[in-house]
Amino acid sequence: MTIIRVNGAASNSISALDRGLFYGDGVFRTLRLKHGRPLNWQCQYQKLRQDCTRLNLDCPSDIFLSHEIQTLSSLQPDGVVKIIVTRGGGARGYAIQNAQQATNIVQISPAPQFDPSYAYNGITLHTCQLKLGHQVLLAGVKHLNRLENVLAASEYESAHAAEGLLEDEAGWVISGTRSNLFAYRQGTLYTPDLSQCGVAGVQRDRVMTWAKDRGVECKVIQMRREALCNMDEIFLVNSVFGLWPVHKMGDYLRTQHPVAWQIQQWLNDENNQ
Amino acid sequence: MTIIRVNGAASNSISALDRGLFYGDGVFRTLRLKHGRPLNWQCQYQKLRQDCTRLNLDCPSDIFLSHEIQTLSSLQPDGVVKIIVTRGGGARGYAIQNAQQATNIVQISPAPQFDPSYAYNGITLHTCQLKLGHQVLLAGVKHLNRLENVLAASEYESAHAAEGLLEDEAGWVISGTRSNLFAYRQGTLYTPDLSQCGVAGVQRDRVMTWAKDRGVECKVIQMRREALCNMDEIFLVNSVFGLWPVHKMGDYLRTQHPVAWQIQQWLNDENNQ
Repeated sequence: MTIIRVNGAASNSISALDRGLFYGDGVFRTLRLKHGRPLNWQCQYQKLRQDCTRLNLDCPSDIFLSHEIQTLSSLQPDGVVKIIVTRGGGARGYAIQNAQQATNIVQISPAPQFDPSYAYNGITLHTCQLKLGHQVLLAGVKHLNRLENVLAASEYESAHAAEGLLEDEAGWVISGTRSNLFAYRQGTLYTPDLSQCGVAGVQRDRVMTWAKDRGVECKVIQMRREALCNMDEIFLVNSVFGLWPVHKMGDYLRTQHPVAWQIQQWLNDENNQ
Repeated sequence: MTIIRVNGAASNSISALDRGLFYGDGVFRTLRLKHGRPLNWQCQYQKLRQDCTRLNLDCPSDIFLSHEIQTLSSLQPDGVVKIIVTRGGGARGYAIQNAQQATNIVQISPAPQFDPSYAYNGITLHTCQLKLGHQVLLAGVKHLNRLENVLAASEYESAHAAEGLLEDEAGWVISGTRSNLFAYRQGTLYTPDLSQCGVAGVQRDRVMTWAKDRGVECKVIQMRREALCNMDEIFLVNSVFGLWPVHKMGDYLRTQHPVAWQIQQWLNDENNQ
């Protein structure tokens, strides 16, 4: 069951005039809750705030959102927290009205169950036909316009894969449909440049922090799928499943993921969350 | 005041778990209601149905939606109808679940008041900095992922113009932020190709029908802003304001709009709606 608070009160619904519904005019974050504690909260809140700034949205305060999560977590201390901030209701039309009151929604759902082999042995990554469009004004932001992800998710599900690989319209590898992507080769980490499209997640930052702290170079690059297939390891990260190594992607096949396993252990360590 | 029905009952709210909110996973239409009659209903419904098909959404029946509009129009017989169809609620995650029940929302709002000179003398059209991204799978569809339009609307409002001109990332003219664009020169109509981005509105189809019925050639083309500035006339159409000639756009300046006025008269004639 999902429990929900809207604008500071228990509620299962939002206004049918909300701009989040009309235009996807808002942002969101998804994070794990363990024993009543929202993991990586400072990073998550900072990202939410940055994304609000990108869209010129009022961001609720850290104190307010922490209180909302705490209130819900007394009922359900473990699961997945989803925070949505929209530009609220208002007059008809795309234009932003002054003094619009943002809507905030905080939800806790049970954590999804994944095949336990994914985290260790790795997954099959399906290359999606859908190519992400470019929009520099929205790139990196975890906004509510996610139809591309919805359509791409249908593709990997139909292919019975665990995740889908997204390339952009120019042919560059960007990410998974719901995760950020890393590759490792000969001492260097690589992750796609997200300046034209894609979502910059908290776990992406955390992997970069892991690398920096160890003096491992992490290069943000434009990369073709062919280059990706030549890497020693590929792995995907997000805040719900953590880290999944890529076992298979077309002809690419790996059974050992020593660097991914090491990073996974660090990401999952509660002392680092 | 806006009056609303959700899934066949009077309601001002939708589920806070609706995919329309989470992902903008849905489509919409906006149309005029006059004396209880939804204008151009057959064309509007057909477009809604086509857009649902593009996103693999269940479309409510014509009979059902007509009944919803009729029920609301007994309370408010004139204004603007907005119909939203989303993929409904469901499990977490982008992937589409089988047997998801679509959400339908029907709203009637008072018609907005525009400066009466816009329809005759024409408007100032501001060229937006935002460039539309390409996504062939969504191009033409009036879906709920409209952040580009929201950001672009802020631009023309800041510039104190009545509408904004949208070009795509390749530099082709596409449309207004909330309207389709036509140009006329020496006996021929031109309208931008929407195969990569943009929304194909009902009034665009109606202008093309007007042209076809009169043996006026209407070319769907890729067009630069410089070419647009060489046209005899430019005009914008949508289902709320009808037709607005373009009076001024940078150095482009026109005070006479004979073809636009003729088409406007035909579009506004109740016998054709």
